[in-house]
Amino acid sequence: MQHTAGRRKPPTIHDVAREAGVSRGTVSRVLNGGHYVSPAAQEAVNAAIRRTGYVVNRHARSLITGRSDSVGFLLTEPQERFFEDPNFNVLLRGCTQALAAHDIPLLLMIAGTEAERRRITRYITAGHVDGVLLVSSHSGDPLAERLRDAGVPLVACGKPIGHTSKVSYVAADDRDGARDMVRHLLSLGRRRIGTITGPLDTPGGVERLAGYREVLAEAGVPYDERLVATGDYSRAGGEAGAAGLLDRVPDLDALFVASDLMAQGALTALHRAGRRVPQDVAVGGFDDSPAATSTDPALTTIRQPWDRISAEMVRVLLAQIGGEDPAAVILPTELVRRAST
Amino acid sequence: MQHTAGRRKPPTIHDVAREAGVSRGTVSRVLNGGHYVSPAAQEAVNAAIRRTGYVVNRHARSLITGRSDSVGFLLTEPQERFFEDPNFNVLLRGCTQALAAHDIPLLLMIAGTEAERRRITRYITAGHVDGVLLVSSHSGDPLAERLRDAGVPLVACGKPIGHTSKVSYVAADDRDGARDMVRHLLSLGRRRIGTITGPLDTPGGVERLAGYREVLAEAGVPYDERLVATGDYSRAGGEAGAAGLLDRVPDLDALFVASDLMAQGALTALHRAGRRVPQDVAVGGFDDSPAATSTDPALTTIRQPWDRISAEMVRVLLAQIGGEDPAAVILPTELVRRAST
Repeated sequence: MQHTAGRRKPPTIHDVAREAGVSRGTVSRVLNGGHYVSPAAQEAVNAAIRRTGYVVNRHARSLITGRSDSVGFLLTEPQERFFEDPNFNVLLRGCTQALAAHDIPLLLMIAGTEAERRRITRYITAGHVDGVLLVSSHSGDPLAERLRDAGVPLVACGKPIGHTSKVSYVAADDRDGARDMVRHLLSLGRRRIGTITGPLDTPGGVERLAGYREVLAEAGVPYDERLVATGDYSRAGGEAGAAGLLDRVPDLDALFVASDLMAQGALTALHRAGRRVPQDVAVGGFDDSPAATSTDPALTTIRQPWDRISAEMVRVLLAQIGGEDPAAVILPTELVRRAST
Repeated sequence: MQHTAGRRKPPTIHDVAREAGVSRGTVSRVLNGGHYVSPAAQEAVNAAIRRTGYVVNRHARSLITGRSDSVGFLLTEPQERFFEDPNFNVLLRGCTQALAAHDIPLLLMIAGTEAERRRITRYITAGHVDGVLLVSSHSGDPLAERLRDAGVPLVACGKPIGHTSKVSYVAADDRDGARDMVRHLLSLGRRRIGTITGPLDTPGGVERLAGYREVLAEAGVPYDERLVATGDYSRAGGEAGAAGLLDRVPDLDALFVASDLMAQGALTALHRAGRRVPQDVAVGGFDDSPAATSTDPALTTIRQPWDRISAEMVRVLLAQIGGEDPAAVILPTELVRRAST
């Protein structure tokens, strides 16, 4: 490695073995993942590595093992969305923690443009990470396919649209969550129930809208397309969506919004239009992200089990890196009632 | 590479050369940075790489060139601060753009805990990135030194406390900016000017406080330590700092807050205490981050030239990766007057 070349001779694996009082083979096994090494020997080797300042030549090692011992968290959204939407913060923290238990660092990659996707794909397919947690909402995105074709272990957050069973994913049950929310709004006696959907090239957009339509149909409420606004998961999109709905359907009495962040924006529009929440319009969100409790009134919402989602994404990815076949994991959601309904 | 092994034989560099109608040496030069290659040949090779689906064996290549052709953006703050403080968003976007001009991907690394710092250091010193943009406010942080000792090219954002000229940094002129703001508050006739500082183990904390003290001394205003609250660059810290100052000095008539985010919190505390801004208390921030214009009233602040800071960080880092010695770059700030003073 260029970085350790310099004034004094860098320590070798032999120095580490001597310092730890173990064989060179034991050091090598620790370096390659610690299989068949006792915890005591592993600790001795790690201490010796720290004391000697030994740095593994990972380029050479990667060439042998094919491993970088790291995982990428790849977001194919513009950077602004990453900072705006608290879901990403929660998901990132969960994945970081789940990987920490395996002593694996997480690298964040934001690839919102085609040029960024090309650069990051190059970096990933070069083997600088062993696998990718893909957080990508849009189905038009060819990245999942590109990475899969290159043989990169991959787990998507949310079911990719047009999904084949060759790509792993972990998702909350979007349709079921939407059904619970709309049933809840109906149970409050509301009948003019509007919805602001996610983008309709995302699974959350499609499935949550499907749940909304199903429950209304089951309840005998005729479908009225003026009650459906298409959103984009942003706060501004929620605000615009609610304003449009109020224009078209002034007697709207409930609103199911497909994300808490959009619901924040919707509350702003309802407030501006002089509607009281929940008295005039009951509002339900989706996610139970930090956005849900920072609003006034706090949002009734559908809890996505973020801790389990991130833990399962990491579990499935590590299994795949270890050679297992892809898998899909669907987790249940939960209605959380707060002041907005 | 393991990833390209599989059903069909992966394309080789010979296939790319044939497809592009150039020599193998030209392909190799393009792959190694494009030196001494005409733009036309470079374009032909890139097109051929896309058509053939050729994937460079970067492990092998890295072993030869010692390069990963990527740069890390390393934040040694807890993940929550990254999402809370809009400065990071702005800085990250600037660095991403400056690197995009060189077709170099940026990897984000968040290392808020000692275990995370250890894992990320391991990844970096293994050569998976060629250099690091270090965004770390606290001086107690041994990471800069650890990376420097390992020979990793490094540029810090802000002058590291206890800085030696062996670590590059790019910083706005903190002291000068603070002097401008306090002079501005004095020019409005204010004399009971409080300050909420940054953490005093950060350059921004120390230097902005020093500027405040200097200007008051020059104006013959006696130093009163009850007017100084130590903050932590968080919104909550600004709110607590302003509340404490109002308790100790009820006739406070101006406030210089060392970051816009803390100033947001300070406005909340002033509002709650029934103080009008700017009539009762004039408030000046620091950064000119998006936080400055989202407050009511909008903040008078000191603009940090984020675009230039990020561009200079990238320029100095790439020079250092290319073999140049470290350098420090100090950039001027600017007073931006808005409604809060």
